[in-house]
Amino acid sequence: MTLPLLALALLASPTRSEVTPRPEIEAYRETVGSILREALVRGESYAKLEELVEVAPHRLSASPGAAAAIEWARQQMIEDGLENVRLEPCTVTHWERGDTELLRIVSPPQLAGTRLPILALGGSIATPKHGLVAEVVEVRSFEELRELGDGARGKIVFFNRPMDASLYRTGPAYGGAVNQRTQGAIEAAKQGAVASVVRSMTTRLDDYPHTGAMRYADGVTKIPAAAVSTRGAELLSDLLAKGETVELHLELDCENFEPKPSFNVVGEWVGTEKPEEIVVLGGHLDSWDVGHGAHDDGGPCCQTIEAVRLLKTLGLRPKRTLRVVLFMNEENGLGGARAYYQDHLDEMDRHVFAIESDSGAYTPRGFTVDAGPEALQILSEIASLFEGTGGDRVFKGRGGADLSPMRPSGVITAGYRPDSQRYFDLHHSARDTIDEVSPREIELGAGLIAALCYVVADLEQALPRNPVPASGE
Amino acid sequence: MTLPLLALALLASPTRSEVTPRPEIEAYRETVGSILREALVRGESYAKLEELVEVAPHRLSASPGAAAAIEWARQQMIEDGLENVRLEPCTVTHWERGDTELLRIVSPPQLAGTRLPILALGGSIATPKHGLVAEVVEVRSFEELRELGDGARGKIVFFNRPMDASLYRTGPAYGGAVNQRTQGAIEAAKQGAVASVVRSMTTRLDDYPHTGAMRYADGVTKIPAAAVSTRGAELLSDLLAKGETVELHLELDCENFEPKPSFNVVGEWVGTEKPEEIVVLGGHLDSWDVGHGAHDDGGPCCQTIEAVRLLKTLGLRPKRTLRVVLFMNEENGLGGARAYYQDHLDEMDRHVFAIESDSGAYTPRGFTVDAGPEALQILSEIASLFEGTGGDRVFKGRGGADLSPMRPSGVITAGYRPDSQRYFDLHHSARDTIDEVSPREIELGAGLIAALCYVVADLEQALPRNPVPASGE
Repeated sequence: MTLPLLALALLASPTRSEVTPRPEIEAYRETVGSILREALVRGESYAKLEELVEVAPHRLSASPGAAAAIEWARQQMIEDGLENVRLEPCTVTHWERGDTELLRIVSPPQLAGTRLPILALGGSIATPKHGLVAEVVEVRSFEELRELGDGARGKIVFFNRPMDASLYRTGPAYGGAVNQRTQGAIEAAKQGAVASVVRSMTTRLDDYPHTGAMRYADGVTKIPAAAVSTRGAELLSDLLAKGETVELHLELDCENFEPKPSFNVVGEWVGTEKPEEIVVLGGHLDSWDVGHGAHDDGGPCCQTIEAVRLLKTLGLRPKRTLRVVLFMNEENGLGGARAYYQDHLDEMDRHVFAIESDSGAYTPRGFTVDAGPEALQILSEIASLFEGTGGDRVFKGRGGADLSPMRPSGVITAGYRPDSQRYFDLHHSARDTIDEVSPREIELGAGLIAALCYVVADLEQALPRNPVPASGE
Repeated sequence: MTLPLLALALLASPTRSEVTPRPEIEAYRETVGSILREALVRGESYAKLEELVEVAPHRLSASPGAAAAIEWARQQMIEDGLENVRLEPCTVTHWERGDTELLRIVSPPQLAGTRLPILALGGSIATPKHGLVAEVVEVRSFEELRELGDGARGKIVFFNRPMDASLYRTGPAYGGAVNQRTQGAIEAAKQGAVASVVRSMTTRLDDYPHTGAMRYADGVTKIPAAAVSTRGAELLSDLLAKGETVELHLELDCENFEPKPSFNVVGEWVGTEKPEEIVVLGGHLDSWDVGHGAHDDGGPCCQTIEAVRLLKTLGLRPKRTLRVVLFMNEENGLGGARAYYQDHLDEMDRHVFAIESDSGAYTPRGFTVDAGPEALQILSEIASLFEGTGGDRVFKGRGGADLSPMRPSGVITAGYRPDSQRYFDLHHSARDTIDEVSPREIELGAGLIAALCYVVADLEQALPRNPVPASGE
């Protein structure tokens, strides 16, 4: 666009947000504006992320990278002036990828030796030392697998149901396909298969495999499991569609170890009037061991530390305490989340709000909140102050995974929701690097998280808590 | 995010759009959904853009690249089944960048020889053959420049007012700084300066200079003008702030030529019941001569061709005619826009709606429309059918630059508005490449443009036209 378009950019006047805030919330409009502007002009989320991915690009639980990240986060919180900075112990999953990840075509002969890009799934056992060779059978669902009867016995089951690209948001598309990754090895083993290979969880057609967590079940044989790139999946599927018998050589030397001690990293911004009431904001400091975990979840962790720094810089200290919690082991165990809940059980009834940023550091769309109509209304009114940022909407939905243990205690949990279109292009893959992060997008998100948490922590009345389920969940 | 988060993604239920469509518009909900899903699953905007940037990465008006792009677009429209495909003549600006673009520090001596990354501004004259050497004076506004009195005489004026990063959307930030680029050489020359160097129009701090159009004025000496990268600008500014006398050597061999004949590319999807009534959708096929012009405006051009292909594929032919117009010379002259208006004057009163996509191919935010309350309401109701895409909002604002000549005729003009956060990171620079385009984002945008234009073109009643100004504008 050139000159005339600048005129129209200037003249474009967005329609007012549809929600009208009550006077107590309206009174925060100027403060909210100052937080958002500070974030956009002098925000340091991106600079923090540059440091984090330099210090610890791979942060899988129990790894040296995770340890380095924990120490980095502790020091960063201190440097940013957070209070009561501490490491809180937890026990985390320990799995290592090893050195060998190989998926090679054995037959048809004309393609013998062709390698397909794979990553072992987190939690997978190794193959036998020199790998295994077996015929491939393709399925798109567990039903289809079960209908094969003995047809999968001795074979590699290839789960190839793609994420549903027709859905407008990619989160539900991921949700509709990921059981193949998480439970595929269980279901395949039940049918007598020797290994499981799953199409990578992305709508993009490329050569990057996407890893992620998988499970085994008691009483079901453990078989190795890997994710193949989408182009690799297309190749396999095309061969099978032509009626070829496809044999593959799969070799993995990943390994599960005993759980290990680790830490969540916690820092606070102590409230002025009700310091015992707590608003939690956080992300998960662990990541997969490929790429930088820049969007998942390094950038969002940096946003939550930065949120407090922004408030401090502006001299804004709310009535209640803000507590930044960077959880460990979200990706493959939730050890950090469980430890946090157990160790803070006695103050759960004073947790008035908890928000996690774990959907990438993209341009803002809003927030999901697991709360009743009254709290949703209050939060919608606060978010209406973010008009013009694109992040002014509140949706009913769940909070972050690390907050899930708090739900039965009636804590209102929430998630920061940036745009989802690009997220699964890089999620759990080598492409999740800082080059994919936009400085403005990450800073604006930090500002929104800071502003939302500030107002929630500063309101006269705490948000009305969720009912505590009679029998848990 | 891992497993539990998928559950929350599935459970997140966005609040319903705040606008309730009237029954006639509600009736299109299913059709709109089919268009959007088709775009996301089988859309070809990205594939078209891959071809375009391969055939003609640089498409500056009057260049061989522009000619190649015109022929590519004509063939693409035919291939996609558009009707009445044709080239419509126009006259375009002809400027060439030349081979030499050099900005080098002469003093202070300790930095002598240091090169700063620049691009000549479109329309600039050359420097003398071996360049010019002059002292630099920094200003942030035309007022500050005028207050220098004779202080700029014989010097290079360095315009260094940054885009205002505190604004939530980047378009207005661009609008608040770009007069330094467009009119800087005029104002500097009035004060006796020998050249103008402007800080690149981006909030990003990097080494990429951003070009763009500039003007001269009758009766004011023409002086050469270039844009320096933001890091280069910071270096200059830091030196000057230390009290250094900074002398620079500037050398450009760009050149203006006589205007040249060229073409807009036009194709139609003829209406079933009111074929003489027209909905225009388009972008501009020209681009700057750096990068690929992937976001500005190659991708959006592909979206508008694709919009018709989507409708055709789905067997959707509206009552009125859809006309795709790919304008030439938007970047530095609007020759295509003026020719289109002049050559279609007799049917302007039958142009019921015109939309341009010229703000990048990013994730959707909505539409700006220059219309009265009644038409805005109808369009908002249509956009409410896009709930969940992020592009369901209509803002009062202007349409695209190429549509501006139509406004005095009462034509409702509009712009497709994707998210703006990343746009000026790459706008008019070598970074505007296809790697920066997300396949899902460009396809979703194409779907929204297709759906909006389809419904507008298919409604029983045409949108109420804008009043024709008594005396033009």
